[in-house]
Amino acid sequence: MSEIIAATEAVLLADCSDTFVTRRAASITLDYGGIPGDIHFGLTRPAGAREPMYPRGTEIFNRRQITILSAEECEKIAENMGLETILPEWLGANMLVRGVPALTQLTPGSRLLFPSGASLYCEGENMPCTGPGEVIQALHPDLPKLTAKFVKAAYHLRGIVCSVERPGPVHEGDTVRVLVHKLS
Amino acid sequence: MSEIIAATEAVLLADCSDTFVTRRAASITLDYGGIPGDIHFGLTRPAGAREPMYPRGTEIFNRRQITILSAEECEKIAENMGLETILPEWLGANMLVRGVPALTQLTPGSRLLFPSGASLYCEGENMPCTGPGEVIQALHPDLPKLTAKFVKAAYHLRGIVCSVERPGPVHEGDTVRVLVHKLS
Repeated sequence: MSEIIAATEAVLLADCSDTFVTRRAASITLDYGGIPGDIHFGLTRPAGAREPMYPRGTEIFNRRQITILSAEECEKIAENMGLETILPEWLGANMLVRGVPALTQLTPGSRLLFPSGASLYCEGENMPCTGPGEVIQALHPDLPKLTAKFVKAAYHLRGIVCSVERPGPVHEGDTVRVLVHKLS
Repeated sequence: MSEIIAATEAVLLADCSDTFVTRRAASITLDYGGIPGDIHFGLTRPAGAREPMYPRGTEIFNRRQITILSAEECEKIAENMGLETILPEWLGANMLVRGVPALTQLTPGSRLLFPSGASLYCEGENMPCTGPGEVIQALHPDLPKLTAKFVKAAYHLRGIVCSVERPGPVHEGDTVRVLVHKLS
């Protein structure tokens, strides 16, 4: 198990409306199931397109509690799309971290530990969907075909989904210790 | 994603006393957190030796809800130890399956689907501990050093731990569909 020390550049949540777009906060509170009040909070959720083995809408355990993006990978997506910036808000991220090489490829089973004692468990890569592309297109009405471009531009750069292993607060600017899991 | 069709040879639970040793049942009922009444049931559990990143006893999310062994791997452990049989009860298994090649190496993220709709999510290999070796030694008082032998004999043959993704009953003799997860 190797260890990486990185920075929590931003913490975010989607608690304002029915959109997955998130807003920055000074801190978020993790509990079992995610961030209370966030659109993705819950110990269970309805199965969707990512779980074709279940009828759509079947109640299953929620492993997609928290979405984390890498600042470096967001910069790469922006470059791939010819945009100046890609904000984590547009992709519905709950955290933006800087200093984890190839965050999206972080092995499932890796852990992210925060100074409060809060801890996240990496469930794996967040597979692309078109939702964020539509948000980005709506924000850049003068540029063509951004929705379609996004999926390709963000491939393997969409960060990870995590579940809460240990509750606690996480603050903007917190150091994060990433314990990289090695598959045996 | 590849698919394997296998057989649930036995379902078991530890609901009799304070031991991890399990007993066979005609069926078990899976709920979020495991098998209600089983010694390992719960959405949370205290951190132990397998989670050195937490102070011992810290409450964390429970991913060790269900333990599954392979019949073929139990036969291999018995052979390695010079015993006639290794029963899944002694290792505290909740299920014994037959027909999954190298079950212990099943990729985390794989799913086991049962006819009722119940589903388990593979959390990874169950790392050896000495508890089952002590049970096996106590049952074979005439044979020397079985406790120590067990850890080596069972290395990478100790099966997997799972969490419940979708509740429901599982019956002895049920067919199980194993959806093997491929890491991208």
